[in-house]
Amino acid sequence: MPPEALFPDDPEDTRVAILQATYEALVEHGYADLTIDRIGQRFPKSKSLLYHHYDGKDDLLLDFLAYLLGTFEADLGLDQDANPHERLTTLLDRVLSPEEPPGPATLRRAIVQLRAQGASDPEYRQHFTDHDRFFKRQIADIVAEGVADGTYREVDPEAVAATLHTLVAGAMLQRATAEAEDMPAIRAEVDAYLEARVLADGR
Amino acid sequence: MPPEALFPDDPEDTRVAILQATYEALVEHGYADLTIDRIGQRFPKSKSLLYHHYDGKDDLLLDFLAYLLGTFEADLGLDQDANPHERLTTLLDRVLSPEEPPGPATLRRAIVQLRAQGASDPEYRQHFTDHDRFFKRQIADIVAEGVADGTYREVDPEAVAATLHTLVAGAMLQRATAEAEDMPAIRAEVDAYLEARVLADGR
Repeated sequence: MPPEALFPDDPEDTRVAILQATYEALVEHGYADLTIDRIGQRFPKSKSLLYHHYDGKDDLLLDFLAYLLGTFEADLGLDQDANPHERLTTLLDRVLSPEEPPGPATLRRAIVQLRAQGASDPEYRQHFTDHDRFFKRQIADIVAEGVADGTYREVDPEAVAATLHTLVAGAMLQRATAEAEDMPAIRAEVDAYLEARVLADGR
Repeated sequence: MPPEALFPDDPEDTRVAILQATYEALVEHGYADLTIDRIGQRFPKSKSLLYHHYDGKDDLLLDFLAYLLGTFEADLGLDQDANPHERLTTLLDRVLSPEEPPGPATLRRAIVQLRAQGASDPEYRQHFTDHDRFFKRQIADIVAEGVADGTYREVDPEAVAATLHTLVAGAMLQRATAEAEDMPAIRAEVDAYLEARVLADGR
């Protein structure tokens, strides 16, 4: 996601300005080399405000993640006039694209490293539990609508959503941490799954 | 995987003894709190041998990961007399089980944290690229056998394998870093996918 979609042009709000500096520092340095100092270099006001607002790097990064999730909660960018299958396909095109997705790879890699903190840190764990629940809910609602209007078979929307979301999580993990060579094949196989299992016959 | 399957009872080899100490320290402390010192506490010989064999914690952990992958390469524990679909199901039961999988959760969480290093460290990235290739190859070979003997339809074994492996990676990530509530639903949906898309009609 490009920064112009995430942040206002000239954020008045100190919190938003700090989070924009965090975004820019993450894109440039990645998670491993991120320091409060490097965030402060991109922050136009006094660096002491960072310490006034946040208890440290993790406190700041958790608020950054909450802000990102908030932008998705506010608007997932799906055309509400489109039918359920068009919306599902738009979402899958975005998060499971055969090519490298748009936006900085360093940010996607940083987010996977933040997610890994959930293995040992309860606050990150709670954030990613909320994150997973939100995206599964969005997909399940679209699938349920498709079942209701006859686009889809009588599948369990929650199970289809959990499976697709888990596949997306796995694809993001592989892209961020390894050479992921099979994304076009995976995307085609997901379409084949939807065709064979989810889409109603003769639609 | 239980330690008795990973390590000999009383390893003669210094490398294996160090890796067993690493395993035990990871299970007890997780990745975030792992130190060479804590590994040394579980190593029966002189701690200086650790520094003699390894350049530091990451060098040691990369060799630990290579050793783990080697045990899978040596024997995946699948019954070679079983038919392809039985072998695939056995594998999925193990890595995509509805319940918490056997073996220490701390180790699985640590491995996800090691995987996240692949976002910024080329050596971890290479390891997990090899790891992904190995598991996709195993699944693709089983699926290809199933296509050849008529158990499966004329699917692309590589695409099915990449999709299943990616789903497994996503499930491991979610289990390690969030409250993963949908594993039974996901496992059932994978069976529905195999039924609708992969298994031949009237088999």
